[in-house]
Amino acid sequence: MGNLPKFVEFHEEGPREGFQIEKRRFSLEDRAKDIDALSETGLKRIQVASFVSPKAVPSMADAEELFEAITRREGVRYTGVWLNKRGFERLAALPGAYLYGKMVLYTTDAFCLMNNNCTTEQMRRNQLDLLGVYDSYGLPLQEAYILTAFGCNLSGNVRLSAVIDCVRFIVDICQGQARPLPNIYLADTVGWANPEGLKRRIEAVREAAPGARLGLHLHDTRGLGAANFYAALQMGIDLFDSSVAGLGGCPFAALKDSTAAGNICTEDMVFMCEELGIKTGIDLDKLIAAASLAEGVIGRPLPGKIMHSGLLSTLRKTR
Amino acid sequence: MGNLPKFVEFHEEGPREGFQIEKRRFSLEDRAKDIDALSETGLKRIQVASFVSPKAVPSMADAEELFEAITRREGVRYTGVWLNKRGFERLAALPGAYLYGKMVLYTTDAFCLMNNNCTTEQMRRNQLDLLGVYDSYGLPLQEAYILTAFGCNLSGNVRLSAVIDCVRFIVDICQGQARPLPNIYLADTVGWANPEGLKRRIEAVREAAPGARLGLHLHDTRGLGAANFYAALQMGIDLFDSSVAGLGGCPFAALKDSTAAGNICTEDMVFMCEELGIKTGIDLDKLIAAASLAEGVIGRPLPGKIMHSGLLSTLRKTR
Repeated sequence: MGNLPKFVEFHEEGPREGFQIEKRRFSLEDRAKDIDALSETGLKRIQVASFVSPKAVPSMADAEELFEAITRREGVRYTGVWLNKRGFERLAALPGAYLYGKMVLYTTDAFCLMNNNCTTEQMRRNQLDLLGVYDSYGLPLQEAYILTAFGCNLSGNVRLSAVIDCVRFIVDICQGQARPLPNIYLADTVGWANPEGLKRRIEAVREAAPGARLGLHLHDTRGLGAANFYAALQMGIDLFDSSVAGLGGCPFAALKDSTAAGNICTEDMVFMCEELGIKTGIDLDKLIAAASLAEGVIGRPLPGKIMHSGLLSTLRKTR
Repeated sequence: MGNLPKFVEFHEEGPREGFQIEKRRFSLEDRAKDIDALSETGLKRIQVASFVSPKAVPSMADAEELFEAITRREGVRYTGVWLNKRGFERLAALPGAYLYGKMVLYTTDAFCLMNNNCTTEQMRRNQLDLLGVYDSYGLPLQEAYILTAFGCNLSGNVRLSAVIDCVRFIVDICQGQARPLPNIYLADTVGWANPEGLKRRIEAVREAAPGARLGLHLHDTRGLGAANFYAALQMGIDLFDSSVAGLGGCPFAALKDSTAAGNICTEDMVFMCEELGIKTGIDLDKLIAAASLAEGVIGRPLPGKIMHSGLLSTLRKTR
């Protein structure tokens, strides 16, 4: 089994990714019910909503109400997405929200301008300001994301050197300010990664940030999600973002149909782990039930496979 | 890049797999048009139809007419599926059909009984009879398929020893009758394979049949198709069956929705190869056009990803 990890940690992003991208609106009750189902599966971290401008993302206008509508389960960390101080403070005002310090960096100005209306350079300065905010809450820098780490639909190929430049920025800040290194995530925001390129980037990032735990945020935009996930496992990666039922996607990554470009599917990847003898702490039957619930709410077939084909455990007999 | 092959050969099964499984009927013209589009892509082998009992598979009742309706392209081998002498002779009677000797073996009686109404033992005897038929046509034994080579929905786990027993049967026949070894295909008929188990089986089959070229027939039933494909590439496998747009599936592998359980998607896997620097001889733009054509005929979104998200070549710029 080589370098495969013994345990893989999944951060569930389905509720935020899934409902954020849909054109239709869904009831608070339905969304809360799906999050509650996810919290029963053994998932330890669930991204509930985005705390962003309701003008920019109307589907997330009731993020606070959704947070309040869910039934909190002990041991589950309910998180949110924020892009700036204002978003972070909205999240921080909610009792029971899981808070931590996070840095978000981009490799290309074009994508950064589109998503954040600023250059990569300005984005870095904003992140330094946010560090001060986290400090004022007594929160350590826990995660650093490098977005468009494999390619960018607007600027094309992303050189490895652009990724390593982001890694060095993180390492320098942490060394300069005597902070421990955060978990560093490479995000394949628009589905450019392939298994071999991914391995090379992981190796290079490890060299540039020795000792940092690496995570991956993968999309199945071009059908390579499961292969990229397996390649990452082969590199010993044990931390992944994923979406139940393959919910979600990136509107900038799709040609005709934004629903075609979702995150890697949590239950399918958990299934892969289990088949490879890797523990996840997740109850697959319950996770598949949560996936079916989400599919019922969204009201069309979602990309997850095992929710439609079923587990092997019921079919498996030791003969 | 390790053991990755330099060139991968794809055998297209979409037309047969896709239209065979659908409950609706589609016009001869539409099906022929899709096959013609596929023949323009650089694919060298296209499985057109099944030559089986029209009572068992009504959608394939017009297999002969479909063969005659397609526009033959030089260099493309148009093949069919047959289960017995009668089916083979129907195919052989068609001018321009590509003929070859093929052996099909099963690892479990249950699946063999369901598909062929005979035990694995009887199936072996039938295959020996078919060898005589191929001989009478002057056709060498070119392919041997081991179905349910990774698991069986009816009998559960399939031991490696059951697969190796099939391989030994093939090797013994060939040695006894002084025939060259055929290409040996492991078929994940109902989606039980995982990347590591697949590697172990490939290794064991190579040991049992040294020198035989191995091929894989993979399904994406449980979302591991792309990972299994990549694992096979890592083992140097260079021969795959696949389906354009992810058409098709196995009715016995699905819980609720037979369309959820298709073969690995040709264009997505060709894309993976190209990204890994592996040649395929296939024009991806044309293949995606053929996938969209098939989706238009079937009339609902098909599982293929890149046909919905687009290639990177247009987005890619060397900066």
